[in-house]
Amino acid sequence: MKDGNPQPLVLRQDDGPVARLILNSPMNYNALSTAMIDALSDALDEIAAEDAIRVVVLAARGKAFCAGHDLREMQGARNDEDDGRAAYERLFSRCAQMMQKLPALPQPVIAEVQGIATAAGCQLVASCDMAVAAEGVRFGVNGVNIGLFCSTPMVALTRAIPPRAAFELLVTGEFIDARRAHELGLVNRVASPAALEAETMALARGIAAKLPAAVRMGKRAFHAQRNLGLADAYETAGAVICENLLLPDTAEGIQAFLEKRPPNWD
Amino acid sequence: MKDGNPQPLVLRQDDGPVARLILNSPMNYNALSTAMIDALSDALDEIAAEDAIRVVVLAARGKAFCAGHDLREMQGARNDEDDGRAAYERLFSRCAQMMQKLPALPQPVIAEVQGIATAAGCQLVASCDMAVAAEGVRFGVNGVNIGLFCSTPMVALTRAIPPRAAFELLVTGEFIDARRAHELGLVNRVASPAALEAETMALARGIAAKLPAAVRMGKRAFHAQRNLGLADAYETAGAVICENLLLPDTAEGIQAFLEKRPPNWD
Amino acid sequence: MKDGNPQPLVLRQDDGPVARLILNSPMNYNALSTAMIDALSDALDEIAAEDAIRVVVLAARGKAFCAGHDLREMQGARNDEDDGRAAYERLFSRCAQMMQKLPALPQPVIAEVQGIATAAGCQLVASCDMAVAAEGVRFGVNGVNIGLFCSTPMVALTRAIPPRAAFELLVTGEFIDARRAHELGLVNRVASPAALEAETMALARGIAAKLPAAVRMGKRAFHAQRNLGLADAYETAGAVICENLLLPDTAEGIQAFLEKRPPNWD
Repeated sequence: MKDGNPQPLVLRQDDGPVARLILNSPMNYNALSTAMIDALSDALDEIAAEDAIRVVVLAARGKAFCAGHDLREMQGARNDEDDGRAAYERLFSRCAQMMQKLPALPQPVIAEVQGIATAAGCQLVASCDMAVAAEGVRFGVNGVNIGLFCSTPMVALTRAIPPRAAFELLVTGEFIDARRAHELGLVNRVASPAALEAETMALARGIAAKLPAAVRMGKRAFHAQRNLGLADAYETAGAVICENLLLPDTAEGIQAFLEKRPPNWD
Repeated sequence: MKDGNPQPLVLRQDDGPVARLILNSPMNYNALSTAMIDALSDALDEIAAEDAIRVVVLAARGKAFCAGHDLREMQGARNDEDDGRAAYERLFSRCAQMMQKLPALPQPVIAEVQGIATAAGCQLVASCDMAVAAEGVRFGVNGVNIGLFCSTPMVALTRAIPPRAAFELLVTGEFIDARRAHELGLVNRVASPAALEAETMALARGIAAKLPAAVRMGKRAFHAQRNLGLADAYETAGAVICENLLLPDTAEGIQAFLEKRPPNWD
Repeated sequence: MKDGNPQPLVLRQDDGPVARLILNSPMNYNALSTAMIDALSDALDEIAAEDAIRVVVLAARGKAFCAGHDLREMQGARNDEDDGRAAYERLFSRCAQMMQKLPALPQPVIAEVQGIATAAGCQLVASCDMAVAAEGVRFGVNGVNIGLFCSTPMVALTRAIPPRAAFELLVTGEFIDARRAHELGLVNRVASPAALEAETMALARGIAAKLPAAVRMGKRAFHAQRNLGLADAYETAGAVICENLLLPDTAEGIQAFLEKRPPNWD
């Protein structure tokens, strides 16, 4: 992703309308270094502008999906004149902006999670719209174990799972497995490790087969109406569904359904 | 419900303090046509003014509880000068107003769900305060399958079930059964198909046996405090519980409890 | 807790950094009388100022954790000139302030629940950050059974469990057991009655072993960001995690982790 870098931090592999972004720094458990955050951010910006891409899968190489921030990089900043304050503010601001690009992306994003997803790695999973995890994957917001409460991962986590379970994970630093993460609503589907990619891609391709404009409108409306009161939420969603209905492809989709034939969307 | 119509779209059958509203258009799976929305809206307005009614059950006739909007009616509007835009805006505005009458109704409303509840039919279930579903009922927000993302059903759905499960249902168009709907919190109780009406009515009668003024105050407070911060929510709820306490019937209810006798509320 | 009272309403027993507050009015099921509310409020104010206390356990003596407000005291106020209105307003205002001290307390609070927790007693459990309950404990917001809808308990309950399950409990007055309370997210862990205290204390001691400043910052951020939009929540949490990172103890915690040794936090 970076000029002249033989080992890009984020790989991209397209499979038709599905873009696979793959965290590619297995040596440090795909740590969210500044460079990794920027690479991921750039990759998302790129995809946001591509109409041909309909779904994104965020996967990772190696034993861990992502083990959070790059602790060595963070310790390095302590030598700065201000003990690192400015560097930390930049880092977390950049990271929060990257995380917010996931719900803001026009296309749905599915995390494909293997190994472990901890701290900001767990935040990354929670920031995707959905997640598929391999059996045995461990999730944690365990920064508290080294004296750094996972305050920013908490933002995504508390919007994905029930509050008291989230609190427990945050203060105990304990791990949960993929099954428990499914019960709590962090993970949509649990697959065997061998079937993880296939099941995630099947989910992605299923969504990619829907009318892309409808999915895009729907994802935008999903996030736009989430925190509104009921009347405002209906106003927002009502405007979206009217626009959706007026699409010629939607007219065709409904007509095809009434005539019991497949839609002609090509 | 309409003058001179031998087949009213919404039937009403009262069983003492429980009003049963029954969607009565089985031929088109109780589609939420403009006429059905208006009939339901009128029936709710009527009940809102009736002190004798303490609980409402929303049930349906036929193979489906409700399969969503009336697609033929919607396609018809495409011949309008503006391709249907004004008609669609009116339709969704009216529908959203009807849906919001359910939480706004003074009495609790229980959906009694058989067959399938899809798209705006699923929204109707989610807009009731509670739901009882027969085993085997299928729920879906499957408009995406014909190119029309269920943006308005999403408003009710995302306020009833966890966000990532909701997102999955919306973008995949897949169905869930009554048991899964119970796990997700959309459905309160699952009954055998043969026992559906009896179990729903038992729940309704149990609530109808409570002090009606307390239940009405409580329902209003439930929805009023939902989206407020903690301090504002306590202010709202605190005012309500003080009014509740000052009711003579509540004085009697507490006194009866202290004296270990049934309250004299008649 | 009160001068000259041989039987304080709230006992405090410290176990190192864990303060145990114990409701001590088993004869009336630890009713939240004005005196009990004040005693609990005072105890929380005291602990809020104590840096040596890292975790609080809220437990109770007798057959009930807490059965809610003191109904005899409430009935007594009906003889006031205004039928009790001013007394009720004071009572619920005071109670709401006490309840809000639990999330506002710098230290995490764990409810250790035996017997039953009903009405404001259930609110008390839901107002703690976490809860451990003994198998067989029954939870209910059953005021509706005596004509007093649990409007104020509802504020805490609807912020802890899914909305439609909360509505059902409130209007039916029915009880749920500890396992169901765990499924709904009200209870974090279920223990055998004999192991309740040991398991709660193990959880408390585990949290007390973390870096206290990190836990305090985290708890504050948890509640501060809860109702904010995503961008505002990240701004709040980002400021907190930067402050956390700048703590010398956190620098040591991260360094120790990188060097694969235990942190020197003493």
